[in-house]
Amino acid sequence: MYRTHTCGELRIVNTGSEVTLAGWVQRLRNLGGMTFIDLRDRYGITQLVIGDQAPVDLHQTVDQLGREFVIKAKGIVLERSNKNLKIDTGEIEILVSELHILNAAQTPPFTIEDETDGGEELRAVYRYLDLRRNPLKRAIMLRHTMAHEVRNYLSSQQFLEIETPVLIKSTPEGARDFVVPSRMNQGQFYALPQSPQSFKQLLMVAGYDRYFQIVRCFRDEDLRADRQPEFTQIDCEMAFVEREEVLNTFEGLAKHLFKSVLCDYLHHPDHPQFHQPFPRLSYADAKRLYGSDKPDIRFEMKICDLTSLAKGCGFGVFDSADFVGAICAKGAADYTRKQLDDLTEWVKRPQIGAKGLVYARVVPEGVKSSVDKFYTPEALQQWAEETGAQQGDLILMLCGTERTTLEALGALRLEMGNRLGLRKKDHFAPLWVYDFPLLEWDNETQRFYAMHHPFTSPKPQDLSKFYSNKKEDLEQVCANAYDFVLNGVEIGGGSIRIHDSAVQKRMFEVLGFSDSDADYRFGFIINAFKYGAPPHGGIAFGFDRWCAVFGGSESIRDYIAFPKNNSGRDVMLDAPSRIDEVQMKELGIASTTI
Amino acid sequence: MYRTHTCGELRIVNTGSEVTLAGWVQRLRNLGGMTFIDLRDRYGITQLVIGDQAPVDLHQTVDQLGREFVIKAKGIVLERSNKNLKIDTGEIEILVSELHILNAAQTPPFTIEDETDGGEELRAVYRYLDLRRNPLKRAIMLRHTMAHEVRNYLSSQQFLEIETPVLIKSTPEGARDFVVPSRMNQGQFYALPQSPQSFKQLLMVAGYDRYFQIVRCFRDEDLRADRQPEFTQIDCEMAFVEREEVLNTFEGLAKHLFKSVLCDYLHHPDHPQFHQPFPRLSYADAKRLYGSDKPDIRFEMKICDLTSLAKGCGFGVFDSADFVGAICAKGAADYTRKQLDDLTEWVKRPQIGAKGLVYARVVPEGVKSSVDKFYTPEALQQWAEETGAQQGDLILMLCGTERTTLEALGALRLEMGNRLGLRKKDHFAPLWVYDFPLLEWDNETQRFYAMHHPFTSPKPQDLSKFYSNKKEDLEQVCANAYDFVLNGVEIGGGSIRIHDSAVQKRMFEVLGFSDSDADYRFGFIINAFKYGAPPHGGIAFGFDRWCAVFGGSESIRDYIAFPKNNSGRDVMLDAPSRIDEVQMKELGIASTTI
Repeated sequence: MYRTHTCGELRIVNTGSEVTLAGWVQRLRNLGGMTFIDLRDRYGITQLVIGDQAPVDLHQTVDQLGREFVIKAKGIVLERSNKNLKIDTGEIEILVSELHILNAAQTPPFTIEDETDGGEELRAVYRYLDLRRNPLKRAIMLRHTMAHEVRNYLSSQQFLEIETPVLIKSTPEGARDFVVPSRMNQGQFYALPQSPQSFKQLLMVAGYDRYFQIVRCFRDEDLRADRQPEFTQIDCEMAFVEREEVLNTFEGLAKHLFKSVLCDYLHHPDHPQFHQPFPRLSYADAKRLYGSDKPDIRFEMKICDLTSLAKGCGFGVFDSADFVGAICAKGAADYTRKQLDDLTEWVKRPQIGAKGLVYARVVPEGVKSSVDKFYTPEALQQWAEETGAQQGDLILMLCGTERTTLEALGALRLEMGNRLGLRKKDHFAPLWVYDFPLLEWDNETQRFYAMHHPFTSPKPQDLSKFYSNKKEDLEQVCANAYDFVLNGVEIGGGSIRIHDSAVQKRMFEVLGFSDSDADYRFGFIINAFKYGAPPHGGIAFGFDRWCAVFGGSESIRDYIAFPKNNSGRDVMLDAPSRIDEVQMKELGIASTTI
Repeated sequence: MYRTHTCGELRIVNTGSEVTLAGWVQRLRNLGGMTFIDLRDRYGITQLVIGDQAPVDLHQTVDQLGREFVIKAKGIVLERSNKNLKIDTGEIEILVSELHILNAAQTPPFTIEDETDGGEELRAVYRYLDLRRNPLKRAIMLRHTMAHEVRNYLSSQQFLEIETPVLIKSTPEGARDFVVPSRMNQGQFYALPQSPQSFKQLLMVAGYDRYFQIVRCFRDEDLRADRQPEFTQIDCEMAFVEREEVLNTFEGLAKHLFKSVLCDYLHHPDHPQFHQPFPRLSYADAKRLYGSDKPDIRFEMKICDLTSLAKGCGFGVFDSADFVGAICAKGAADYTRKQLDDLTEWVKRPQIGAKGLVYARVVPEGVKSSVDKFYTPEALQQWAEETGAQQGDLILMLCGTERTTLEALGALRLEMGNRLGLRKKDHFAPLWVYDFPLLEWDNETQRFYAMHHPFTSPKPQDLSKFYSNKKEDLEQVCANAYDFVLNGVEIGGGSIRIHDSAVQKRMFEVLGFSDSDADYRFGFIINAFKYGAPPHGGIAFGFDRWCAVFGGSESIRDYIAFPKNNSGRDVMLDAPSRIDEVQMKELGIASTTI
């Protein structure tokens, strides 16, 4: 028996009991012949004391100890004279009578503390040590709790978790597929799924009308920050439903997680937002008001179209622009010249790409702008009225083409949200965005691509446009698709799928596939749809990201026990790596790059 | 709104309500102007009636229907005059007022019935149709319930589910690894995990003292019946534990599944076996008494060593054998000559490999054997006493070397169990087998191999033998390893791991690895163990197989939604398959077999 209790368990009521604990040495302090050891395990820290009266051999054992040694200690629980009320076990300590070293430890390459001295790279190599630190431990435990609550909720709603295969078939469009050479079928390859999309649709055909799966997906793409070649989705699909039922069902899931994870587990205060219907925005409105299809609505600061007010007053920059837009930064009228110059530099960076920034302060004397000389005080006052700016507020204006200006204003809005502290980590603002465009025109190949995937249904009211042969009509067709956005992060996306074979045929036609093309690419699913496909739709959530947003973190990497770096490498394992020639030969492949 | 209720929901209390149902046409019957439709969904079947008074257009719609059409029907719930008490909805029917075809269906290539007319291959191609059949639906739903209850139980016991990576590193011993070429790191490969063994041990080093994961594993081996290239494990590990705590913890899991899945979900009767401590057998006893390391203890029929009684009486076959063993088949004394000849042929098959079968019947006149002339009646009586055979029983004897004879008797025992109906699908007999050999000598390479893996701990009491240089001593070292066996099926296996670096070093030495070899093969985990590894151990259960045993099936394939066939192919997807030259080039690989 290595322990009678964990290091997070003992309290003042246990005083006088003989206990055995096991764990890691977090800290050792020697004070005038007495030694104090902070003993750590997953559950907490308990203080051990080796008194100055302790036998010599006990002191000798203690003298061998170092940080991160694994020990087992037996002793009596005592009330501490010097209580530490910051930790749950801080009212007691263990007067040690026996101590055994279970395993020695080399000095770790960085400190195992909440704030460590180890750099990112070093910590990645020693991930198993980094995982000992509280911030990562909390992230991993949060992830477990999230997954468990997702399963509890969906199971209670009659969803079945059904595992779909990892070794599947590569499709000709699968440029981003990882492939797996087959030893038993040489010259042939499996692919790893980018998502279980086809399988969940097949399950709908098979009659499993409520499916979900917390499932690993794979995408072999050039990685951006915060992307991983393998990631986890909460993948869901329902049959005999329309959009409203899908949104309501998964709003239910989100509310369950707000309650069970944010409130009950993380002890966030309950928020009225969690109980009301979630706000919904069309894609067009999201772009127009927030310059983004995933607006962070923790704060207002909507984009205001000032084009008609700003143009034609002789200010050449505005006069020559298609679009002039503004946001109102509440309470920022006292921004200094330096702060404004800094913001101007910020919007001029290539990532934002604005030519310049016009501002107007609402001060007691009226509205004071950098372009005063072109506008009457009344005109400036109108800007304030239009943007809702009141005394003490700052109006920030950009201009250019409508699309790029809205996007730049969207980015500036987020930046101002950050600078003004409006994007609080412990505030959660859910949002549905719907009515995305169905099709995207690609100038290079002169064809349409499906914005989501070729099985996404057009909205019923847009069907006539969908059958039109005009490019302008087709560009306006809305998909029956929706995204779940939380704090400006796209957490989930889904759609109602096409279940009518005539609509599906038209879709392939619009995408420029011949029948034989379509059959080659999507044969097994087109075939399945001939045998009685029900109406269906679904959604998939990025599980890693949802965990990160709940945990208040920017990075998904902390929420993955063994993540890969930005080059797709596992630096702890040193993977990927070369393999034997023998193994290559057995698989019937050769490397062309050596 | 496609439906107000499911097809399994309506009861006599709903009589008079207007409802809308949606589902698949299971059956259509026309009786004198009235049409009866069995409408099916995941939840059940409800009878629809289209009366002879129904409008013409409704009848016209009905005339278009065929099996597996997807329809939506609105109508009034009526009490049936002709009740079908075999199904839950059998007391009511729906008098249809509106009927819409949601999707047409081609006639399926086999009948969607519990007993279908489709062959295995055909059903595999149309897996999404096969999954509509009740036996598969029950299997998939059982699997969901099992997974959910495993998670509930382990979470309640403070286990954290932690996801480990799928793209990992291939090891030089990884001949059975699937590999994945990396596009971003050309010439290098990831491997898919055969199990998360290293990761769970790293998690123990990281302090996550109770880990589990229901996880996909991959093995590229020549497939036997009932093996899959990808399969699912319940993978578990604990720190600061000895064997007893591991066994008790997972006995708790098994008991929870007996209660929640077998009794509550599948409505099996509760069984005293489920509540008592599970029987335990050492590996040596299992081999000696059952001729197997995974005995089916649903029935007795233990193997009896008759060597000393049977030898030296002039019967040459026994006299020249190392070992003579017997089993007693209760109540089988009336086996006919033909049945015995048939059994003799059965044991002579190459899979069993016995030279012949000797039998002795216990009849009112005494013990009558096929080798009567060599033995006195008293000698034969002793056989009966030794094997516990009573009047009406049949003694079956085999001889040869001890090991092969025990194995053959073990196989014969199972066969007799089958023939006598002693292996009941609804009877569940759990068993722990422990003290497996640590090492296996390989004559070909003249070295020891780890029977489990090189991190399995020897039993503490065998440590002196472990440090011996004699082959005979090393062969006798027991591993601190254990298997969980249910109804003769190995469901789980695990061990206490080595956490002492001196023992680990000795293990590598015994296995003939130099330090640099060991480092190359297991570097990252050996390194991790230097930073404070706690004592730990664990177990992994074959989840597909556990589901199959609970479901009373021989085949795991029914419990996997989209399984592969015996050649590792997914015949529905037609995977694996060739990929583009372009894609190969991008990955930096070429096929050497085209």
